[in-house]
Amino acid sequence: MTLPASQVEHQADSERKAGVIGNCPDPAGLLRHEPKLRLDLLERMHDTSVLSAAQFGRDVLCELMKLAAYLQLKRFPVMHALEDKIMAAAFFEPSTRTRLSFESAMLHLGGRTISVADAKTTGVAKGESLRDIGQMFNSYADVVAVRHTEQSAIDELCEYLRIPLLNGGNGSDEHPTQALADWYALLKWRPEIAYGEIPEQFRLNIGIIGTPGNMRTVKSFLMLALLFPENISHITIFSEMADPLGEEIRELTNASPIGIDFSQNLKQSLEYLDVIYMNAIAYLGDGYRFFGDAFSLDKDSKLKPDTVILHPLARGEELDTSLDNTQHNLYFNQADGAVWIRQALLLAIFGRVGDIVPAEYLA
Amino acid sequence: MTLPASQVEHQADSERKAGVIGNCPDPAGLLRHEPKLRLDLLERMHDTSVLSAAQFGRDVLCELMKLAAYLQLKRFPVMHALEDKIMAAAFFEPSTRTRLSFESAMLHLGGRTISVADAKTTGVAKGESLRDIGQMFNSYADVVAVRHTEQSAIDELCEYLRIPLLNGGNGSDEHPTQALADWYALLKWRPEIAYGEIPEQFRLNIGIIGTPGNMRTVKSFLMLALLFPENISHITIFSEMADPLGEEIRELTNASPIGIDFSQNLKQSLEYLDVIYMNAIAYLGDGYRFFGDAFSLDKDSKLKPDTVILHPLARGEELDTSLDNTQHNLYFNQADGAVWIRQALLLAIFGRVGDIVPAEYLA
Amino acid sequence: MTLPASQVEHQADSERKAGVIGNCPDPAGLLRHEPKLRLDLLERMHDTSVLSAAQFGRDVLCELMKLAAYLQLKRFPVMHALEDKIMAAAFFEPSTRTRLSFESAMLHLGGRTISVADAKTTGVAKGESLRDIGQMFNSYADVVAVRHTEQSAIDELCEYLRIPLLNGGNGSDEHPTQALADWYALLKWRPEIAYGEIPEQFRLNIGIIGTPGNMRTVKSFLMLALLFPENISHITIFSEMADPLGEEIRELTNASPIGIDFSQNLKQSLEYLDVIYMNAIAYLGDGYRFFGDAFSLDKDSKLKPDTVILHPLARGEELDTSLDNTQHNLYFNQADGAVWIRQALLLAIFGRVGDIVPAEYLA
Repeated sequence: MTLPASQVEHQADSERKAGVIGNCPDPAGLLRHEPKLRLDLLERMHDTSVLSAAQFGRDVLCELMKLAAYLQLKRFPVMHALEDKIMAAAFFEPSTRTRLSFESAMLHLGGRTISVADAKTTGVAKGESLRDIGQMFNSYADVVAVRHTEQSAIDELCEYLRIPLLNGGNGSDEHPTQALADWYALLKWRPEIAYGEIPEQFRLNIGIIGTPGNMRTVKSFLMLALLFPENISHITIFSEMADPLGEEIRELTNASPIGIDFSQNLKQSLEYLDVIYMNAIAYLGDGYRFFGDAFSLDKDSKLKPDTVILHPLARGEELDTSLDNTQHNLYFNQADGAVWIRQALLLAIFGRVGDIVPAEYLA
Repeated sequence: MTLPASQVEHQADSERKAGVIGNCPDPAGLLRHEPKLRLDLLERMHDTSVLSAAQFGRDVLCELMKLAAYLQLKRFPVMHALEDKIMAAAFFEPSTRTRLSFESAMLHLGGRTISVADAKTTGVAKGESLRDIGQMFNSYADVVAVRHTEQSAIDELCEYLRIPLLNGGNGSDEHPTQALADWYALLKWRPEIAYGEIPEQFRLNIGIIGTPGNMRTVKSFLMLALLFPENISHITIFSEMADPLGEEIRELTNASPIGIDFSQNLKQSLEYLDVIYMNAIAYLGDGYRFFGDAFSLDKDSKLKPDTVILHPLARGEELDTSLDNTQHNLYFNQADGAVWIRQALLLAIFGRVGDIVPAEYLA
Repeated sequence: MTLPASQVEHQADSERKAGVIGNCPDPAGLLRHEPKLRLDLLERMHDTSVLSAAQFGRDVLCELMKLAAYLQLKRFPVMHALEDKIMAAAFFEPSTRTRLSFESAMLHLGGRTISVADAKTTGVAKGESLRDIGQMFNSYADVVAVRHTEQSAIDELCEYLRIPLLNGGNGSDEHPTQALADWYALLKWRPEIAYGEIPEQFRLNIGIIGTPGNMRTVKSFLMLALLFPENISHITIFSEMADPLGEEIRELTNASPIGIDFSQNLKQSLEYLDVIYMNAIAYLGDGYRFFGDAFSLDKDSKLKPDTVILHPLARGEELDTSLDNTQHNLYFNQADGAVWIRQALLLAIFGRVGDIVPAEYLA
């Protein structure tokens, strides 16, 4: 673990790569309020599955964000941190970004990966139960990242599973690690959402284009938003659906002091929105549906100058590339941060944070 | 190669993972009769392909089993054992368990993997010969694990191949490393099969549901059974086929003192069977066929209390999940052991056993 | 990084594997004229994409060849050279050889890989732009090797890409790293092409079966041939097309002193050809087309005794296996060298040559 010259070059590479397109807030902002990492909070993630965004308390979430920021800024020597660990990437629903991002995070930490990129290459295609597949992973891996078209898949996999499972998207239900990446971008952009109290007139108005009731990224994003009620004024849902929330989310939002509004007129609302969360596609039970023009954005959209746009990508026509080279573009930073927050998550799940982070950064 | 704390935690993880479901015999039983490993016997596997279960003599087989048991129990520091080696996993017939199990074994030993998970992504789809594919692997890898729908594929691949090939299933012919996993489970369960002489009245009655003549796992399993004639009383084949053995197996069984019976009535025979080997599917030349009810088992089946069931998985309806939480379930242990016996095999093939196993365990 | 015994065995393995089939020239020939490596020239590849064979000057090309020869002969301890680097293998057009060869090269150097083996498992299948895919790779990897059915794909990927891209074949356009492998074989076979001046009567006649205008391997091969005008007498193109060169190549060949001929009669020309470059398939805009008998070779073809055949493989019927065990067969050596030249390329792109090559070999 020497290679000091290379290490320097590695940092230089990253500096060069970072920040070229769109809005790239400095991760250091996340570390100003309370710079020391609290291992006791991160330890709660040890050996824990990530099934739903709802499982994150604000304190653990913030420590994960801080850990990601430290990994990104300090480039601790993580090259061998998980070298005795294997992650299975079991993507029964095809995916590129989420799978490669999980694999990249694991490999950055010295871990190894075994992958199923296509359900058609598995026994599932021959009718094998997910319960048996879960049992299989106990022997082959130390953690498993899963994507599946069915919401129920995670529960079935977990029945016999004894290693942590990371939900990488289960049907129309949840995508909690995407939500971590979303909020890692947002909290870098405005650390005061988590660490300050924003004066009433400046509290955030968040617009969500999509239906939390049946779009997994939107649902998980919204769940984490509810952790910051004192700094979020309103969340407006833009959707053509009669009931975009669904029962589970409605119960959560009813219990929150954050105001939830509904609208079908995005254009008229743009001047009020500080954050816009978009998604390309809605999964509607029997397939994916793309949004029409009504909910699309481009450089001529009447955005406030400091509004940022989040999008889990891949995008369709709803998010025009003319926005890419503007400060509204937080979506590329959001994608970039996904690798860092997933590294933080993996280190916490394997209880290796203390092995990697120098004592001076620990509380 | 320090990380002592992590190493301890790694063991704890494994203890936690092991033994939760079904029958989990202690690997230590395999090591009692003759604890020291004989490198001279393991050396015979050095640089050797594994094409057929018939190539294993009892002495080499038993040393591989002991090595697997030591790896599982002692957790020698294997993290870098094969770090200069690359395994190609060439699965022209899709598979999850076998491919991931080989890859996991290789990665556990610090080796690296390149994979073909789907023949459609290869030149084979464009008509490339397996002979040329074999030549290719000479340059790209140090060992190649192969599965193919055709029995002849292994021979074709071997024509120009100069690195060891591990047959991971060739059509209806053989699956020798599965048979190693099968017998690793059985010998952990009853080490005296290999290392003792069982009194006549307690010698094993093994039931095989399937047709050794055209089911590769069944065929390879049966071949290894023939290595223990003094401790196996009878093998009963349950099959609807007129000639379930086929010529090759019939010659082998004719030469063995073990009695071979045939039956189509599994229910009536259950009270006599100590071991039942099942398989989900029969490959019948032009495709796969599932068995019907006649040969299925569930918790109400009249099994002897200490009968164990083996199944290479994935399973169909022939093996009911109601058996999972019983001591009849040796099939999950069999799947778990596959990673350990494949690690033992890879170490032997690369001649690295002596680099990894401390001298105190060597004969 | 010790394992001295294993290292020795690794070499022995390679000796055993090398040279078994066909013509296996000694890489040492490349190192006789000017044994010391020039880091200043290799440094020009640092952080550089490989898009076209046309980008290589003769001096850099020759240093890459020498580096490959040193890697192959000296087995420097490269096992950790790129352990902090990740290569994304993004094969939107399926491929086995090129993908596995890139992956094998990266893994040999201790690097790690994330792979897309099938475009159908990616967001591209859902309509995602290659520009966005390129942006994604900035965050997930340090270098990306790409194959795509469309010529334009590379440019689109590069729009937002900030890491080096290695073109592994873009439609009918180019395959520059294949050309490096082609010439690595040829220059091992006749180092004087690069390092000497061949007397006029012995200058090479090269036959190319195929259409440089629309076959990527042929085009890239021909581009590198133009670097050695003083030692190549003629290049004869064997093709059924009216204009096999196309505009881009015609401009290049017009500017070269090497004579370019066209012929449809391979048999009649065989007695003049020193090198024959073949390819199985022509990509003709809407699909692949195989050549007929007119351009096929077998052991009865009237080749000169010392003529060598190159073929990027996979092959069809145009190259009969009866030639495999002859000295005409340089194609297996060409495939074998691909892993070494790609290792040289990766080390140069990451600026790590000086970390790996002992000072005594450096100029």
